[in-house]
Amino acid sequence: MDFERIQMRLDKLLAENRKGELRGALSMLNEVDIAEYMGGLDNEKMLVVFRLLPKDIAADVFAYMDTDQRQRVIEAMDDNEAMRLVDDMFIDDAVDFLEELPAGVVKRMLKGCDEKKRALINQFLRYPENSAGSIMTIEYMELRIGTTVGEAMTEIRREGVDKETIYTLYVLDPQRKLLGTVPLRKLLLAKDDTLVDQLMNTQFVCVHTTDDQEVVADTVRKYDLISIPVVDHEERMIGIITIDDIVDVIEEENTEDFEKMAAMIPSEDEYLKTGVFRLAGNRFIWLLILMVSAIFTGMIITHYEDLLKNSAATFGVVLTACIPMLMGAGGNCGAQASTLTIRGLALGEIATRDIYKLLWKEARVGSIVGFALSLLNFGLYRILYRQPVSVAATISAALFLTVLLAKALGCALPLAAKSVRLDPALMASPLITTIVDACSLLILFTIATNVLSL
Amino acid sequence: MDFERIQMRLDKLLAENRKGELRGALSMLNEVDIAEYMGGLDNEKMLVVFRLLPKDIAADVFAYMDTDQRQRVIEAMDDNEAMRLVDDMFIDDAVDFLEELPAGVVKRMLKGCDEKKRALINQFLRYPENSAGSIMTIEYMELRIGTTVGEAMTEIRREGVDKETIYTLYVLDPQRKLLGTVPLRKLLLAKDDTLVDQLMNTQFVCVHTTDDQEVVADTVRKYDLISIPVVDHEERMIGIITIDDIVDVIEEENTEDFEKMAAMIPSEDEYLKTGVFRLAGNRFIWLLILMVSAIFTGMIITHYEDLLKNSAATFGVVLTACIPMLMGAGGNCGAQASTLTIRGLALGEIATRDIYKLLWKEARVGSIVGFALSLLNFGLYRILYRQPVSVAATISAALFLTVLLAKALGCALPLAAKSVRLDPALMASPLITTIVDACSLLILFTIATNVLSL
Repeated sequence: MDFERIQMRLDKLLAENRKGELRGALSMLNEVDIAEYMGGLDNEKMLVVFRLLPKDIAADVFAYMDTDQRQRVIEAMDDNEAMRLVDDMFIDDAVDFLEELPAGVVKRMLKGCDEKKRALINQFLRYPENSAGSIMTIEYMELRIGTTVGEAMTEIRREGVDKETIYTLYVLDPQRKLLGTVPLRKLLLAKDDTLVDQLMNTQFVCVHTTDDQEVVADTVRKYDLISIPVVDHEERMIGIITIDDIVDVIEEENTEDFEKMAAMIPSEDEYLKTGVFRLAGNRFIWLLILMVSAIFTGMIITHYEDLLKNSAATFGVVLTACIPMLMGAGGNCGAQASTLTIRGLALGEIATRDIYKLLWKEARVGSIVGFALSLLNFGLYRILYRQPVSVAATISAALFLTVLLAKALGCALPLAAKSVRLDPALMASPLITTIVDACSLLILFTIATNVLSL
Repeated sequence: MDFERIQMRLDKLLAENRKGELRGALSMLNEVDIAEYMGGLDNEKMLVVFRLLPKDIAADVFAYMDTDQRQRVIEAMDDNEAMRLVDDMFIDDAVDFLEELPAGVVKRMLKGCDEKKRALINQFLRYPENSAGSIMTIEYMELRIGTTVGEAMTEIRREGVDKETIYTLYVLDPQRKLLGTVPLRKLLLAKDDTLVDQLMNTQFVCVHTTDDQEVVADTVRKYDLISIPVVDHEERMIGIITIDDIVDVIEEENTEDFEKMAAMIPSEDEYLKTGVFRLAGNRFIWLLILMVSAIFTGMIITHYEDLLKNSAATFGVVLTACIPMLMGAGGNCGAQASTLTIRGLALGEIATRDIYKLLWKEARVGSIVGFALSLLNFGLYRILYRQPVSVAATISAALFLTVLLAKALGCALPLAAKSVRLDPALMASPLITTIVDACSLLILFTIATNVLSL
C-alpha cells in the first residue's frame, strides 16, 4: 500500500474520531512513517495521534520527528508528560532533543527527573559539539571479565531489552577499562561454561569521547563496524556509537563539504527550515571576499587598456570577447582537479605525500585536455571568426597555459590546505576560479603584447 | 601501538623469515590493517604473508584489499588455490572480485568449483550494475513460518556460522515469500515454545533485485536499518544487503554527485588508479560543451563593441574591467543556490513540489545579498575608482540583477531536471555559470546603453 493511500485512510479515521481503529491502523506502520504522517497534521490532531501511540512507540516516533514537529508536540504537553517522554527515549536521542530546547525549558524539565538521570544528561550536554561524546549512547551491554557464556546469556535476557544494541558485548575489567569485544553470534555458538575471556576480540578499535565525529565516521567506515566503543582519557568505557548515527554523520559531513565547496559557511539546519537572514549571512562573507579579489582582475584589464582599445584588425574587441571563454575554461578545469583532490582526501584515497604523483598526473591530463581544446579553439577563431593566425594562436596558447595552470592549482591548493591543517574543501572551485581568472588574463595579455610587437 | 611501529615490527619478522612469530604477530591485527600492511609489500613478500594467514582470515583480508593488490595475489597463485579462496568468501565479496577479473580467468576459475556455486555466481554476475541484486548477499538466516523460538535458536546455532548476519531473521512461507522479520534480540527474550509468527514484524521494508542501489541506500537511511531484505518480482526472498555495503554505496553516490557538479563524467575508480587518458576523457566532453557555449558570451561582447570602445570618461574600459567581477559574483551565487537545492533533493529534504517555496526564499536571500554587495560595489566605484554616479550605478544595478537571476536559476534548474527525471547534479555550477555569464553581460550592456543615451 503506498503512502498516500495510507494517509487518506488515517485522515478519515482521525476526522471521524474513531480512536480504537486509528490506534490499530497506526500499529501497522513503521515509526518513521508515523512521524512523517504526523508532520502533515495540525497541532491538535498531531497530539491526538501522538497520545494514541503505545509509550515505547511514541518515544521512537518522537526521535524520528524533525525539530519543528518536536517543538509543536512539546508545546502542547505539560511538563510532566514531556518529562515522561524524555525518560522513555534513549539517552542520545533525549540529549539531541534537549539541545534544541531553550535553556529555561530544559532546566524545568530536568527538575522533574531523578538525580542519576539528571547528572547523566548534564554530562552529555557538556561534550563538545560534534564530538564522539555528543553522539554516543550509554545503553550498551557490558560483561565483567571472568563471566561464563551461560551467565552472559542470562544477563542479556535480563537487561537486553533496554539496550540500543546487544549484538556486540563489551568486556570490562573491575576498573571499567575495556578489554575486548564479543559478538553475540560467538556467544550463541559457544558452550555455556566457556569464559567470555576466551571468545573476546582484543584487536577492537575504539574512539575517545573528545574525538571529532568525522574521525569516528572514518574509523567505522574503514573497519566495516556496526558499532564502536567510546572510551575516556583513562581508557574507561563510556558508551557506544551505532552505525545508524554514523550514517547521519557521513551525510552531514558530505553536506558540509558541498557547502564549503560552493563558497558557503556550512549550516547544520535543513534548507527549508533556515531563516532568510541566516542563509544570506552564510553566503555573504565568501561572496564579499571573492568580489573584492575580483578587483585585481579588474585592475589587470585596466592596466592593459591600450591593448584592448587597439583597433588593428579588431584585435582589442576579439581579446575582450574571448575573456569569458578563457575564464570559464580555467574555472571549470580548476573545479575538476580540486573536486577530485578534495574528495580523494576526504575518502582517504589520497594523502598529502602524494602531491608529486598528483601534480604529474594532472600535468599530463591537463596537457591532453588543454591541447585538444586549444586546437578546436584555433579552428574556431580561424574559420568562424575569420581571425588572422596571430590572433587565433595568441588565444589558443593562452587557453592551453590556463588549463595547465588551473589543473596544477586545483590539486596543489587543497593538498597545501590539508598540510597546514585547514579544511581542503575551502580550496574549491570559487577560490581557485578567482585566482585562475586573474592569472589567465595576465597570460593572455602578456602573449598578446609580445605578438603585437612582432 | 601506532601503525608505523606495527609495520616496522612485522617488516623485521618478515625479513628474518621468522614465520611462526610473524603468524602470531599478524593474529593480533584487524583484517583491515593486515590488508593495509600487505599493500606496502612486494609480490613475493605479500604472498608469504598471505599464505601464513588462517583460511577464514585470509578470505576476509582479501575482501578488504584493493583491485591492484587482489590482482597481484591472484597472479601469484595457481587456479586451485585461487578457487579455494573464492570458495571461502561471502558470495557478494566473491562476485565483486570476479567482476574485476578478465572473462577468461573467471571462466577457468568457475570450472573448478561445484555446479551449485557456479550457477549462483553466474546469476549474480547477470544482475545490472549498481542494482540491489548486484550488491546483495545470500548468506542470510531464514525461518519457516510455524517454527518455534526453541527450534529457531537450534537452527541459528547450527547454520549461523556461515551467515553474514544473524541479527535479523527472515520468516518465509513455503513459496519462499517473505512474511516478516524477527530481530534476534526478540528471539532471545522470548519463551522457547513461542511461535516466531507471533514475534515477527510484518511492517518491514524491502527492495527489489532490480532497484538501483541509490534507492536502497535512501531506504536504509530513512528507516535506520542495519540490513534490508531483497525480493524478486514475485516477492520471493532472494538475499539481503547489510549496512556496511550501504555505507560504501552512500559514499559512491556522493562522489558521483561531486564529480557531476564539477563538470565531469563520474568514474567508479580511485583517482590515483585511473589512467591519464581515461581521466582526460571524463573531463573533456563537459569542457567542450561549456567552451562552445561561451561563444555566445563572446558574441554578446562583440555585439556591444561600440559601447566598449566608447571613450567618454573611460566608460568602455571600466565596463570591460567589471566583467570578471560580475561574472564571478553571478557564478558564485548560482553555485550556492544550486548546491543547496541539489543536496536537499539528494537527501530528500526538498521535493519538486517545493519549487515556489524555494524560489520565494531564494528571491529574498538574493535581494539581501545582492543589495549589500551592490551597495559596497557602488562605494568602491565612486571612491576607489573615482567613477561618476552614472557608471557606479550602472554596474551596481547590473550586479543586483545578476545575483537575483543566478539565485533563481540556481534553484529552478535542478528542480526542473528532477521533474523530467534527469539527474539534478548536472544542473550545477559549471552549467549555471555559463548561462549566468551570458545573461549578466546582456543586463550590464542594456543598462549601460540606456544610461549613456540619457
